[in-house]
Amino acid sequence: MLKEAVYHRAKNNFAYAYDKETIHLRLRTKKEDIQKVTLIHGDPYVWEDGKWIYEEKEMEKSGSDDLFDYWFASLKPPYRRLRYSFLLEDGEEMTNYTEKGFFDHVPVDDIAYHFCFPFLNEADVFTAPEWAKETIWYQIFPERFGNGDPSLDPEGTIAWESEDPKPDSFFGGDFQGVIDHLDHIESLGVNGLYFTPIFKAYSNHKYDTIDYMEIDPQFGDKETFRILVKECHKRGIRVMLDAVFNHSGYYFAPFQDVLENGVQSKYYQWFHMWEQEVKTKPQPNYDTFAFVPEMPKLNTEHPEVKQHLLDVAKYWVEEFDIDGWRLDVANEVDHAFWRDFRRTVKSVKPETYILGEIWHDSMPWLQGDQFDAVMNYPFTNAVLKYFNDEMSLSQFKNQITHVQHMYPENVNEVSFNLLDSHDTKRILTYADGNKDAVKMMYLFQLSYEGAPCIYYGDEIGMTGGDDPGCRKCMEWNEENQDLELFQYVKKLIHYRKTEPAFGNRGKLSFRDTNDILVYEKKADDQTLLFAVNTLSEEKTLTIDDNVDRVLDQDESSNVSGHNLTLAPNGYVILEIN
Amino acid sequence: MLKEAVYHRAKNNFAYAYDKETIHLRLRTKKEDIQKVTLIHGDPYVWEDGKWIYEEKEMEKSGSDDLFDYWFASLKPPYRRLRYSFLLEDGEEMTNYTEKGFFDHVPVDDIAYHFCFPFLNEADVFTAPEWAKETIWYQIFPERFGNGDPSLDPEGTIAWESEDPKPDSFFGGDFQGVIDHLDHIESLGVNGLYFTPIFKAYSNHKYDTIDYMEIDPQFGDKETFRILVKECHKRGIRVMLDAVFNHSGYYFAPFQDVLENGVQSKYYQWFHMWEQEVKTKPQPNYDTFAFVPEMPKLNTEHPEVKQHLLDVAKYWVEEFDIDGWRLDVANEVDHAFWRDFRRTVKSVKPETYILGEIWHDSMPWLQGDQFDAVMNYPFTNAVLKYFNDEMSLSQFKNQITHVQHMYPENVNEVSFNLLDSHDTKRILTYADGNKDAVKMMYLFQLSYEGAPCIYYGDEIGMTGGDDPGCRKCMEWNEENQDLELFQYVKKLIHYRKTEPAFGNRGKLSFRDTNDILVYEKKADDQTLLFAVNTLSEEKTLTIDDNVDRVLDQDESSNVSGHNLTLAPNGYVILEIN
Repeated sequence: MLKEAVYHRAKNNFAYAYDKETIHLRLRTKKEDIQKVTLIHGDPYVWEDGKWIYEEKEMEKSGSDDLFDYWFASLKPPYRRLRYSFLLEDGEEMTNYTEKGFFDHVPVDDIAYHFCFPFLNEADVFTAPEWAKETIWYQIFPERFGNGDPSLDPEGTIAWESEDPKPDSFFGGDFQGVIDHLDHIESLGVNGLYFTPIFKAYSNHKYDTIDYMEIDPQFGDKETFRILVKECHKRGIRVMLDAVFNHSGYYFAPFQDVLENGVQSKYYQWFHMWEQEVKTKPQPNYDTFAFVPEMPKLNTEHPEVKQHLLDVAKYWVEEFDIDGWRLDVANEVDHAFWRDFRRTVKSVKPETYILGEIWHDSMPWLQGDQFDAVMNYPFTNAVLKYFNDEMSLSQFKNQITHVQHMYPENVNEVSFNLLDSHDTKRILTYADGNKDAVKMMYLFQLSYEGAPCIYYGDEIGMTGGDDPGCRKCMEWNEENQDLELFQYVKKLIHYRKTEPAFGNRGKLSFRDTNDILVYEKKADDQTLLFAVNTLSEEKTLTIDDNVDRVLDQDESSNVSGHNLTLAPNGYVILEIN
Repeated sequence: MLKEAVYHRAKNNFAYAYDKETIHLRLRTKKEDIQKVTLIHGDPYVWEDGKWIYEEKEMEKSGSDDLFDYWFASLKPPYRRLRYSFLLEDGEEMTNYTEKGFFDHVPVDDIAYHFCFPFLNEADVFTAPEWAKETIWYQIFPERFGNGDPSLDPEGTIAWESEDPKPDSFFGGDFQGVIDHLDHIESLGVNGLYFTPIFKAYSNHKYDTIDYMEIDPQFGDKETFRILVKECHKRGIRVMLDAVFNHSGYYFAPFQDVLENGVQSKYYQWFHMWEQEVKTKPQPNYDTFAFVPEMPKLNTEHPEVKQHLLDVAKYWVEEFDIDGWRLDVANEVDHAFWRDFRRTVKSVKPETYILGEIWHDSMPWLQGDQFDAVMNYPFTNAVLKYFNDEMSLSQFKNQITHVQHMYPENVNEVSFNLLDSHDTKRILTYADGNKDAVKMMYLFQLSYEGAPCIYYGDEIGMTGGDDPGCRKCMEWNEENQDLELFQYVKKLIHYRKTEPAFGNRGKLSFRDTNDILVYEKKADDQTLLFAVNTLSEEKTLTIDDNVDRVLDQDESSNVSGHNLTLAPNGYVILEIN
């Protein structure tokens, strides 16, 4: 038994409150080392004759990655207090793993040995909006989605699609353009719109905020935005805005004041200035995003700055009834700010979704006191690589299992699972034009837990490399749209909404296969089996399960009794029992 | 190389901000497996020709416990942003450990592989009061320290020391009794008084609060308390009060109202009641501390309850200038409450010390947003067992090293390190009357980092078993006091205050010895070497170091050049270079 591989710690992804009465526990052990794990658990105050009274529960193996097995148990402690340890068996030895290390016997005379989940207080439970679990997002880069009101076009606006975008191109996209095309969005079946920034800014991407309280005039006015939100809500579509609270734009009035007046400016403390006299060249002498002098880091610890940004956060929720905030460069802002941000936003509208842009391990922001979700790039990375032949099937299964175990289950259920965005290549371009790969990626993304997001235009086969390539004008000419792809994505979204096990309610497990990706999604009332052949040759597979129904398959694959014949890049989805 | 044993995760005891410009990083590897660890680190935004620019720094081995080695490095990233990974060498293999796993080479083309400490924001730095690092606490159980004003004695008060305490005895201890004996306290050299609860309550221990806003009349009135605090401050002694915010006492007016009026009571929501009609027997039908019907758990999530308790927290700091709050059963109260508690208390007096009673791993409360310290029972446990022959020297070194690595260094510097309390046997009783063991425990405790605490009367050799035995009346008759022990403890406290390396500034490391405990404390300007012989036979030891000075030794031990002769239970303390 490899004791060095055994890991558990309370109050993170290894032990957390799933809801106000349920505690989830996980344990990590060396891969294929342990045969059985029994959870020893009890209330710390239940004793008889000087011995602690405990119960035993066998843990289930919830998955494996390249080095480790993971074990899982769910408990509802009657008094919401819990002490616990783990009894490990490898066929030869048996040992008890406690907070104080390994012991031959369960230490029942000294409760201090056990791991401790002291009390399940409802206030501390990670609670994201329920609707987020049922949401399929659609990301819109407003400057490039639709030009519905040419009267708003900024000077130098280029005709729609007349050329490929450059970093500083303007094509005149606006809110009216989105309103005009809500039928497209509704028809696809997505039910959440994520807009990259819409506040007054200098650039076409608007990440360089000039005024957080104003709409950029090229997009419309507040009245148009109000109509946009109302039209979305009428169609059951939620609206999420993007804000950059880490730094302001160069033309943000307080920063302009500092540039002009230096240390004399009443806004000097709003930023992190290093010297009395402010310089932007050759290097800025103040904190910035990266080293960009035009993006001065905001001093979110300063009471006035904090109040201003919290007012902003509140204003758009309260006045326009938006449903979510996506927070740019979220991990470079202090945790204290985000705690107040959550408190402020949730006090106005408790069902607001708070999404942080974090590319790394994000557990410190997902404890219930800050964000509801982060952008799940570890998921993105695994899907892109596997379906584009840059990763083996076993590596893919390892990485997805690792992603699932990085965070609590209630976090995974609302995780923002994207395949691409305005910051990356489009998926069809990543796949080198291989539409089959794109279809398989969508199949996996849309049948996976969490809240998937589709980047505008991907659903009709748009291409584009890294920024600015991925920010092309939305293609509205049906002749240039891949309508077959659109129908395919629409179908998957429909399944996600109508088949109980397809989306969040289905718990994913991989089957032990060598070359075909086979995974099960299991809900209380339905089990679906997915088989996907990413290879360029036909593959056959025999399954033991009883097939109730073929939910879907590509046109060249075939199901006959227990035998599946999978065409190259083919798939079948079965309901089994 | 055992990859399964390698562990690191950001934003806890493995990666934390030590101060507003310093980040500490730790890595765990299998014991004696790795020869060299090099930290690869850099700013995420410094690139040249598509390659990330990084620096290397060799990590130092900071200690070992039974299974693992720990490695340490301290960095001051110029822009307060950090990406990093670890290059591990075991003499045969070399591998790079990153957030995404193990790689043969440093992945310099994709920054996303590295571990991430996104930004060192000052607001998130764990910051305890500086004075706590220089404090030696003295715990007083007010009912038993001194009866200075017999006019306050409750009915049925028993003459001081006339009998052993029973669970419900009253001996009439009061504030005047403490004021009268401040000379004793000052003469010992301690500079912090921790009082168990003083608020109006029913019992002698006062953990069953009736009114959080009133002093218990048996102790005096607010004016006397004000004088007590002032007298302490005059002598450079800080004052910490104890509060029970997890539950109230039975006679707390809101709970009495609920008992009387059930669901009709306007305080019904102040507790966690299960049914409309309230029962206390045979089992309470509401949440309690343990299963004690007289200790109903407070609903600290209820806005009125929260506000009342925060008002209490603020009142005693603001009105009486107390310096610290010790929080009973702290881990059963919600984190959200403690965050507001910290914010409230620190807004009145930023230098207030907030100490939680938690017996288990307490990292979730020590992230900078809740407590400054917890009661360090893992330390207590190791010291009691080793110096009383219940643990081997190697087990002791393992456990102390483990304790040191459980938390960040800035947490360890203010950790509340106790040997006993009103909840446990007194140390002389634990040691079965072996005064030598007590002296060695004090030596270790007072030369260890953190904020040590002495339980009233231990310093003059008082005995007593578990509660109520440990709550005997303070012995004021000098003939019954062990004055030699008092002088010994006083001397150690003096060293702690005057020898730079003795206390918090000295970094502890164990020497590799078999039967004698030898440890070094190293500060910038001084290195002290401690050798302690816990055995019942004389031991000799030869050291390589140059001895500058014999700081102290017991009367039977001897230092001659590089040779130490240690009497049974003997010790020497040397300044070396």
